[in-house]
Amino acid sequence: MSAASDFALYGYFRSSAAFRVRIALNLKNVGADPRFVHLVRDGGQQHRDAYKAVNPQELIPTLLHDSRAIGQSVAIIEYLDEIVPQPPLLPRNAPERARVRQIALAIACDIHPLNNLRVLQYLHHAIGADDKARADWQYHWIATGFSALEAMLARNAETGCFCHGDAPTLADVCLIPQMANARRIQMDLSPYPTLQRIEKAALSLPAFIAARPENQPDAE
Amino acid sequence: MSAASDFALYGYFRSSAAFRVRIALNLKNVGADPRFVHLVRDGGQQHRDAYKAVNPQELIPTLLHDSRAIGQSVAIIEYLDEIVPQPPLLPRNAPERARVRQIALAIACDIHPLNNLRVLQYLHHAIGADDKARADWQYHWIATGFSALEAMLARNAETGCFCHGDAPTLADVCLIPQMANARRIQMDLSPYPTLQRIEKAALSLPAFIAARPENQPDAE
Repeated sequence: MSAASDFALYGYFRSSAAFRVRIALNLKNVGADPRFVHLVRDGGQQHRDAYKAVNPQELIPTLLHDSRAIGQSVAIIEYLDEIVPQPPLLPRNAPERARVRQIALAIACDIHPLNNLRVLQYLHHAIGADDKARADWQYHWIATGFSALEAMLARNAETGCFCHGDAPTLADVCLIPQMANARRIQMDLSPYPTLQRIEKAALSLPAFIAARPENQPDAE
Repeated sequence: MSAASDFALYGYFRSSAAFRVRIALNLKNVGADPRFVHLVRDGGQQHRDAYKAVNPQELIPTLLHDSRAIGQSVAIIEYLDEIVPQPPLLPRNAPERARVRQIALAIACDIHPLNNLRVLQYLHHAIGADDKARADWQYHWIATGFSALEAMLARNAETGCFCHGDAPTLADVCLIPQMANARRIQMDLSPYPTLQRIEKAALSLPAFIAARPENQPDAE
């Protein structure tokens, strides 16, 4: 709907939170100028003063639109859903919206931030956790979260082809990047057949495919 | 507006996420039957089968309403704001809503989950982090988050008596419990004058006072 130059997205191909926003932009058919922030190179380009002025958390992604800089991927996606209502990423009625947000936040609050790069770095350098301890940490929090999600999704009549009904919502937008993270560290996903089924449905859609880390210009 | 029996809240006096929901319920003048889940006793009552059926994440809070069980405090508060619009906990227009959500999620995603009880337990038992290492961990993530929040709030004309304007929003509902957590572990809060000013304004309001951990029936 909008010219690409109306929006810009600070991101990094491997960032799960940026991946969420890329999916949402694609589903909404909104183009955004990509601005690449390399999270490892130069000691982490997100810590540069120029980026810190845009996002004081020194985290990505940040969406620029109408001279606003918006951080926090879920806040960005809620914003996109408000200014570009079609296709909706949240259901219409409040109880269903709550279900979708609950699933999304179970990932965005209770899985992803624990396995973020900065946390793994702190575990390594400040706590002295070795490679195995850090790998176990990641498996533990993803497995804890995925077990809960599998239970929430498998036994609920509101689950459809996607987490909620038969079209992608904010819940799927959060789930698919978290599945990609789990696959990247070679987790056994066999205990989560419902999550795998939803992942397969999502990854058949161009909006999800184009947003995948390996399909970004900054992919290594 | 609704009879207390319409709503029930599973919570624990010391839980920061339950504290958020208590504030929101009080601001909306919605009564909720309290159901106490002791996070330490009995190896953690949130792990009992009966509670797990209500909330597969085995985390609190959970709101019961209209035969729905809603988990994730931010999802619960968005739900309350949709079904009980007055007083609003989010501004009217999309860019300002995005700002409030960004502040709230900077706490709900990037500070609180890292210092949650289950994470501190894992650091202790699986990683072998001693008392000092676990205390430093908590200080580190709160200080990292609060420094960003102080920068976001202090230099922004949209900050008022509260995080956004002169009435409490979802942002304050998340900030005040996080401040309480920081005080509980005796953090130095002098680098965050804006956060302290907002905390003082909030803690003059009955809705915030009544929601404080020490004012709950299950407080120890």
